[in-house]
Amino acid sequence: MSEAPSDSAVLDVTGWTCPAPLRDRPRVVMGHGGGGALSAELVQHVFAPAFGGEVLAQLGDAAAVTLGGARLAFSTDSYVVRPLFFPGGSIGDLAVNGTVNDLAMSGARAAYLSCGFILEEGVELSVVARVSADLGAAARAAGVEVATGDTKVVEAGHGDGIYLNTAGIGLIPDGVDLRPQRVVPGDVVIVSGEIGLHGVAIMSVREGLEFGVDVQSDCAPLGGLVQAMLAVTPDLHVLRDPTRGGLAAALNEIAAASGAGVVIHEGRVPVPEAVGNACAILGLDPFYVANEGKLVAFVPREHADAVLDAMRAHPLGRGATVIGEAVEAHPGLVVARTGLGGTRVVDLPIGEQLPRIC
Amino acid sequence: MSEAPSDSAVLDVTGWTCPAPLRDRPRVVMGHGGGGALSAELVQHVFAPAFGGEVLAQLGDAAAVTLGGARLAFSTDSYVVRPLFFPGGSIGDLAVNGTVNDLAMSGARAAYLSCGFILEEGVELSVVARVSADLGAAARAAGVEVATGDTKVVEAGHGDGIYLNTAGIGLIPDGVDLRPQRVVPGDVVIVSGEIGLHGVAIMSVREGLEFGVDVQSDCAPLGGLVQAMLAVTPDLHVLRDPTRGGLAAALNEIAAASGAGVVIHEGRVPVPEAVGNACAILGLDPFYVANEGKLVAFVPREHADAVLDAMRAHPLGRGATVIGEAVEAHPGLVVARTGLGGTRVVDLPIGEQLPRIC
Repeated sequence: MSEAPSDSAVLDVTGWTCPAPLRDRPRVVMGHGGGGALSAELVQHVFAPAFGGEVLAQLGDAAAVTLGGARLAFSTDSYVVRPLFFPGGSIGDLAVNGTVNDLAMSGARAAYLSCGFILEEGVELSVVARVSADLGAAARAAGVEVATGDTKVVEAGHGDGIYLNTAGIGLIPDGVDLRPQRVVPGDVVIVSGEIGLHGVAIMSVREGLEFGVDVQSDCAPLGGLVQAMLAVTPDLHVLRDPTRGGLAAALNEIAAASGAGVVIHEGRVPVPEAVGNACAILGLDPFYVANEGKLVAFVPREHADAVLDAMRAHPLGRGATVIGEAVEAHPGLVVARTGLGGTRVVDLPIGEQLPRIC
Repeated sequence: MSEAPSDSAVLDVTGWTCPAPLRDRPRVVMGHGGGGALSAELVQHVFAPAFGGEVLAQLGDAAAVTLGGARLAFSTDSYVVRPLFFPGGSIGDLAVNGTVNDLAMSGARAAYLSCGFILEEGVELSVVARVSADLGAAARAAGVEVATGDTKVVEAGHGDGIYLNTAGIGLIPDGVDLRPQRVVPGDVVIVSGEIGLHGVAIMSVREGLEFGVDVQSDCAPLGGLVQAMLAVTPDLHVLRDPTRGGLAAALNEIAAASGAGVVIHEGRVPVPEAVGNACAILGLDPFYVANEGKLVAFVPREHADAVLDAMRAHPLGRGATVIGEAVEAHPGLVVARTGLGGTRVVDLPIGEQLPRIC
């Protein structure tokens, strides 16, 4: 970080004044990609003023747009996970499920994906083939078609084997309007199952961190689970998949955008023993660890029991459980009730506890 | 290239047999990203078997899909151009115009873009801000809205400042059906203006290649020009923007997919003097040099004059000219008639003459 990239040396950038929160950090740090406060700062102070419009301002997992009379969800993610293959999946699975799940969080059933490969010169074609096979299998499992693609190659030392980007489009069903602004005090907060599995699976095989747990990533497509929930009532309020930044980031984003307070009961959040142990060893908080096959739902109280039953009847929602509620108190804040009767504020993370988790 | 990326060491890849054309090259080389024969091989032997379906098999600049009754064009490109800023534009302009133009080649007016940044740790935030400003200005100029985005950060030494991916969606007008299969012998081949400007502009500032020409990239959004052409008749047969691999790659793709032969009259292809000189110095053929604001059209003969007039009345088509025609002879082959009355075959390039041009 002490050396400027070669391009910047020839730039006239004197016209740009770094906004205050960024001023102490004139260069990009890993945390800018972590999905927490640093990422939000980049969006607020750099991206939104440059190219933000009404749709980008929704800041949902997917954008909702109307085109030719069709209500569409549109979303993108780049994937830079390391290593490319991990217990329970690969960058190929992740690139499908991550984007499919972002679409699902708007109630859409993913229909088509685009797929952009950035390959590093020298990577084995067999690795490209295996990632491609995983991507194809994941797409078929999610019921989505890869419609268009692109491949670029960068010189050895300017990539890391394979980076992938997928964008996706899907149709939002009539009557479905999922966004944090619809959250009201009294809404029940449901999580679809055990948290922290993806992040711990990656950490368990990350060089320098290997430890002896047998944890598989939960990477899975959530479109079917969401359709089962919407079959109970189209009137769910908001859904998020707690990926980078984990459950804590997802709840904070909803609290901030809705203006509601959120209370969670710490003991009710399902943390697998292996995840808890791994986090204890590494000094991490499971609430901040990434998931790739879970969702958080804010549901009107009158529908909560029926939605919970529908979730538990679906293979990807068997572990669904109520973990808290939206409240009038402490607007915009997420508070956890601890087992001892105390409370603690669950902050938005600054960056990601471990970079390149997805 | 002599060292396997670390991930591949732990893989079981024995199940994958490298198809014959790739067998001599078990690793990715720069040319796999060049948009020529090596790129096509990767698609045919690795990507299509893994995740290809009916839509991907169209192999157009954009996919045409139907969703909620709307006929949509959907396309993606990753941008890894080096340097990030070049005469006539930046990676921010390119990321908008490249994808907008891919959509335009299906007749669609681009409506929404997604935008994925892969930032390298340590890049100056002012560089990110300047690229973002260019991206925003280009989007406004093209009349397209950035609807959704994502940011990832990779460690210093695993990127190159900024990589960008955009995907785009747009509506295909009723009655428009642009694809190479519609080309018939007798179609007139029109190019919208001077070729080779983008590639030569990049080369002129690429380290180790600097030379004293004042050539600006032609990077521009072609949606308006295409709408002006479609206003003459929706019955254009096929459009391509000759980016990587240049005019030669675009014509070869159309010839191969249509089964028609293509004849071009070498002297009629507008090559600016500065481009010709630069290519002579570097030993390059202008037909293979990338463009980012030009299109090639195959137009039914009866409409050719009117389409040409409409193009010349548009600021981005002032230099439009007829360069050849589709013929029954030599199906699938592109042949150039030289000034001396001879002919030469214009092959599909193997890779790109200079990597990371877009």
